[in-house]
Amino acid sequence: MSEAAPETPNRVVTAAVLLIGNEILSGRTKDANLNYIAQRCTDLGIRLTEARVVADDEAAIVEAVRALQARVDYLFTTGGIGPTHDDITADCIAKAVGRPLIVNPEARALLEAHYGDQINPARLRMARTPEGAALIENPVSTAPGFRIDNVYVLAGIPKIMQAMFESLAPGLVGGAPLLSRALEVDLPESVIAAVLTDAQASFADQLDIGSYPFARGGGFGVSVVLRSTDSDTLARGLATVADGLRNLGGRVEERT
Amino acid sequence: MSEAAPETPNRVVTAAVLLIGNEILSGRTKDANLNYIAQRCTDLGIRLTEARVVADDEAAIVEAVRALQARVDYLFTTGGIGPTHDDITADCIAKAVGRPLIVNPEARALLEAHYGDQINPARLRMARTPEGAALIENPVSTAPGFRIDNVYVLAGIPKIMQAMFESLAPGLVGGAPLLSRALEVDLPESVIAAVLTDAQASFADQLDIGSYPFARGGGFGVSVVLRSTDSDTLARGLATVADGLRNLGGRVEERT
Repeated sequence: MSEAAPETPNRVVTAAVLLIGNEILSGRTKDANLNYIAQRCTDLGIRLTEARVVADDEAAIVEAVRALQARVDYLFTTGGIGPTHDDITADCIAKAVGRPLIVNPEARALLEAHYGDQINPARLRMARTPEGAALIENPVSTAPGFRIDNVYVLAGIPKIMQAMFESLAPGLVGGAPLLSRALEVDLPESVIAAVLTDAQASFADQLDIGSYPFARGGGFGVSVVLRSTDSDTLARGLATVADGLRNLGGRVEERT
Repeated sequence: MSEAAPETPNRVVTAAVLLIGNEILSGRTKDANLNYIAQRCTDLGIRLTEARVVADDEAAIVEAVRALQARVDYLFTTGGIGPTHDDITADCIAKAVGRPLIVNPEARALLEAHYGDQINPARLRMARTPEGAALIENPVSTAPGFRIDNVYVLAGIPKIMQAMFESLAPGLVGGAPLLSRALEVDLPESVIAAVLTDAQASFADQLDIGSYPFARGGGFGVSVVLRSTDSDTLARGLATVADGLRNLGGRVEERT
């Protein structure tokens, strides 16, 4: 993943996330990877459009990979690339993209160098990739992730997943970054709804207005988050919403 | 949702979760609902087989609802049922199940009683359901969720979502509960992998063996979680795995 990031395209660049693991669906583990990838994609000007969680089940993984990779620029998967019997992600990705699963010579060399004479079949299991995959560096524990086509296969352990993501981030190409500004107002959502509806209608697709009620320390109110790829549109949207909220008697503050 | 829980069926009862909201995909909000529902489903003998996260986008929501509701017994959605313009879940569910969206008379009565002369169009927006929906009680802030066919539509705010889930939990019918027992061993995953593979192969579908490496306080090791609907199978599986791990020189402890 060493190529420099090409120029930013004008079109919207999209991504999806596929979290793989029985432990998330049984409730044993609370996923921490989706939020990390979501924030980093937003930073990079990549719009995350969908996420799915599936079990360690071949049919479910293959179906989800095929469905998602066809509709986004980048598909990130997490989980299922360790050394045990329930780590079947590499097998499933190979099947989904229609390539043979091989022992990747570069990955094998990395693992042999790392484990020395402690290498064993389970550890070599982590060298398997679809034919033609490029490795994704794992600076934490060596066993690499890999990319094949537009599918980026990352570890499930958050610390390792994050290191892998950061090792490939410089090569990810985002679109125009989505800028955001946020207001807080001390009125309930159901009082300010009409102001937001009108503002959203008048800016249409140029601006996305989100409304998030909060309660903290005895106070309550709403965070209004505005997003646009254009800073002027964002400023005009912010002024429109703030004026509308003040006309309702709200105390409005921009959050930075 | 007042009917008593019918008898437990022998077959596997399944569920899916659909999280609806731009804020999860942008990384602004860290979802807390999936893990809650996952744990409660496991408690109730319901197997969560898939989860998806989609944006506040009609086409995406309708497609996901249709895909998921066709393959599980229970589909739980969270988010998008508040009073603002970006709350479009009720509209989308109505479209997905092919019913007209109406102002539900019972929901309207609840909201009018709660808000009195503070009722307004935004608040009445929260009374809209597909025709034929049954309401799900919201003991926190009145505005109800609803059920239509096998789709259970819950709020996105965790405290309200949890209260709604608990108000309907007595009416959910699980299958044979999935029992679990767990061991910890002080060996790395790649050393114990063969033992787990062999145990999984010999118990096949009767037992599910998961392997979760951990590092804490200078120590490291693996939690091995065994799951089965049959307690004898679980006990035999546990003994098989524990013997195998001790033969490798591991210190094995059952976690309770």
